[in-house]
Amino acid sequence: MKIKHLIMFFVAISIAQIGMSQTSSTSVVEDFKPSSVNQPGKQYPQVNSEGRVRVQISAPEAKLVQLDIGAVKYNLVKDEKGVWTGESAPQDEGFHYYQLNIDGASVPDPGSLYYYGASRWGSGIEIPAKDQDFYALKDVPHGQVREVSYFSKINNAMRHCFVYTPADYDKDPKKRYPVLYLQHGGGENEYGWASQGRANFIMDNLIAEGKAKPFIIVMDNGTWTRPEGARPPQGERPAGQWPPKGWADVFMKTLLEEIIPMTDANFRTLADPQHRAMAGLSMGGMQTRVITLANPDKFSYMGMFSGGSISMEDLQESPGFKGKMKLVFISFGSRELENRRQGFGGDPKANTEALKQAGMNAHFYVSPLTAHEWQSWRRGLYQFAPLLFK
Amino acid sequence: MKIKHLIMFFVAISIAQIGMSQTSSTSVVEDFKPSSVNQPGKQYPQVNSEGRVRVQISAPEAKLVQLDIGAVKYNLVKDEKGVWTGESAPQDEGFHYYQLNIDGASVPDPGSLYYYGASRWGSGIEIPAKDQDFYALKDVPHGQVREVSYFSKINNAMRHCFVYTPADYDKDPKKRYPVLYLQHGGGENEYGWASQGRANFIMDNLIAEGKAKPFIIVMDNGTWTRPEGARPPQGERPAGQWPPKGWADVFMKTLLEEIIPMTDANFRTLADPQHRAMAGLSMGGMQTRVITLANPDKFSYMGMFSGGSISMEDLQESPGFKGKMKLVFISFGSRELENRRQGFGGDPKANTEALKQAGMNAHFYVSPLTAHEWQSWRRGLYQFAPLLFK
Repeated sequence: MKIKHLIMFFVAISIAQIGMSQTSSTSVVEDFKPSSVNQPGKQYPQVNSEGRVRVQISAPEAKLVQLDIGAVKYNLVKDEKGVWTGESAPQDEGFHYYQLNIDGASVPDPGSLYYYGASRWGSGIEIPAKDQDFYALKDVPHGQVREVSYFSKINNAMRHCFVYTPADYDKDPKKRYPVLYLQHGGGENEYGWASQGRANFIMDNLIAEGKAKPFIIVMDNGTWTRPEGARPPQGERPAGQWPPKGWADVFMKTLLEEIIPMTDANFRTLADPQHRAMAGLSMGGMQTRVITLANPDKFSYMGMFSGGSISMEDLQESPGFKGKMKLVFISFGSRELENRRQGFGGDPKANTEALKQAGMNAHFYVSPLTAHEWQSWRRGLYQFAPLLFK
Repeated sequence: MKIKHLIMFFVAISIAQIGMSQTSSTSVVEDFKPSSVNQPGKQYPQVNSEGRVRVQISAPEAKLVQLDIGAVKYNLVKDEKGVWTGESAPQDEGFHYYQLNIDGASVPDPGSLYYYGASRWGSGIEIPAKDQDFYALKDVPHGQVREVSYFSKINNAMRHCFVYTPADYDKDPKKRYPVLYLQHGGGENEYGWASQGRANFIMDNLIAEGKAKPFIIVMDNGTWTRPEGARPPQGERPAGQWPPKGWADVFMKTLLEEIIPMTDANFRTLADPQHRAMAGLSMGGMQTRVITLANPDKFSYMGMFSGGSISMEDLQESPGFKGKMKLVFISFGSRELENRRQGFGGDPKANTEALKQAGMNAHFYVSPLTAHEWQSWRRGLYQFAPLLFK
């Protein structure tokens, strides 16, 4: 295995997590508007045309209140009524997690809606993007997002997933559909793709425009529990292989032996490998890589958003993969590639080019001016979905 | 109209909202466990066998941190590491909203899951109840909760609702189902019933035990926007009629002209008045009262949980109601009745008894030792559902 690449990947994460503290510059464009993902009736947080985030909170007795976004803490300023206000530097277009710090306590902003990321439910904000139309909630036929509860013998626990069914699913009770199994990233959960990921609206819009075939999407929880003490302190080099061999085994078993059979039993699926795809972001991309390489007879399409790539060495280790996989889709945010955050298996563009040269249907997409964040993954899905089940 | 009762109802709300500040007594039973609705992996908040809520948060620079639950603020105590801890007095069994106050800022507890109530997404906690089995997530056949987006011409906006379909809904594509339209309370939204209300698990369990017929539940947003400045300051008596005449008109129109037709078009419903019920809690009960009295030809079953009652005077004003409504269900928490919080139309028990004497199928249920809170409404639904569509 490619231990040096694994190390590079996690060192890159650590570097990104090192925070800084600063106050924003004074030249701020005063055209702030409430964020599109505020709680009903809340005036803050706000966003301006530069992509700055302005927050406001009443904390009359506090000594220090900060906005914590993009690994930077910005000091707010208190007025005579005890209301604190301040803004960040411009942020990338798209969705960002953030929090407030009040005298040392890290808490959600009471003005925002909440999303699960960074292993906690917390505040999120949308920076309007030039291409936001593709994930906008529009007056087109809408699919449903169904919350499904089921008992897992493998995990000896009740589990929970979301299933997107396209708008025409309930029109013809005989029609059957292909299925995409779509995974979230590390520190996220099964809510991500149909919430901050807007996967349902991306699909509704693509299908309404005739750009993608209607298919079912299953979004389950792929969270991997680290062995106690397995991960070294931040910034230190992991000892030996990281993540440890077999880290994806429990989810692979759950997916193959429980989630897929449950989906095929309860939804009108085309229950064969020719109509089954898997994709994921970051950790979910790494899981997609491990699971499809180990099971090329069970999937025909695969996508990895900011989660590494497939190398020629991988093809050698998984002889069935090259012949059976009708699509390999690899994407990253441009800022990840600038930062040499490439995940498993070396340079993803060169790897994908090599797959093409070897005769595979391999696609490489770079999201402009975005990092390891949801705007990259929304765009990844938007590029990936039209290539599926053709 | 019964203005004096309306005034009594809203004055009762105002009294309940007057907060107090106190520190809990020292005789606390030390058997606290993490709440069942904590975020994954979070150790706090915790609940003990007395029903006390203990919270903990790191806020090294803070001067005063409080737990705000049940309209009482409890001061926390700081340790040498800057971690604040403290607990409330015993709470009623069931679900409660709460928040933290950090140096004057009211924020969600970063340890809890979040729920919409009191007009904001915020922290919630479960006090284990002796009868919690009826709303527990168990290994029984589970229905789905489907998130549905649609365009409303009446409101000129995209709207959003949840639809519960029973476990056998997708087994037989020819079977059709009755429908219950189930409304949340004031300051809540369409998420409430299938989240903190646990309506889906209540139904799954009832159906699995053969105690209720399978039916569809539609949970939409009935929020009524108050005219600007219409509501007087807390504690003052509203001038004239409150709420103003016609306050439920827009939701009534949306329900009758858009939500019901959309449901009948997209789900396999029995689309006649004999198979249509409406119910709601608090404001949703008041809406159920107004809408079913005005449209007795469109519904056959109705329920009001902590939202008033139906009087003989109501029957006189709505001549079709008595003959067409197959069930009138009225419920309250016992502590509401102790506090004389009775909602519209006078004493609800006497009113319901009068309906029975007049020959109607009227039921009156009192939830033991609970107030105007979700445990009363879960129990209300649990009593109501078996009476429907018989």
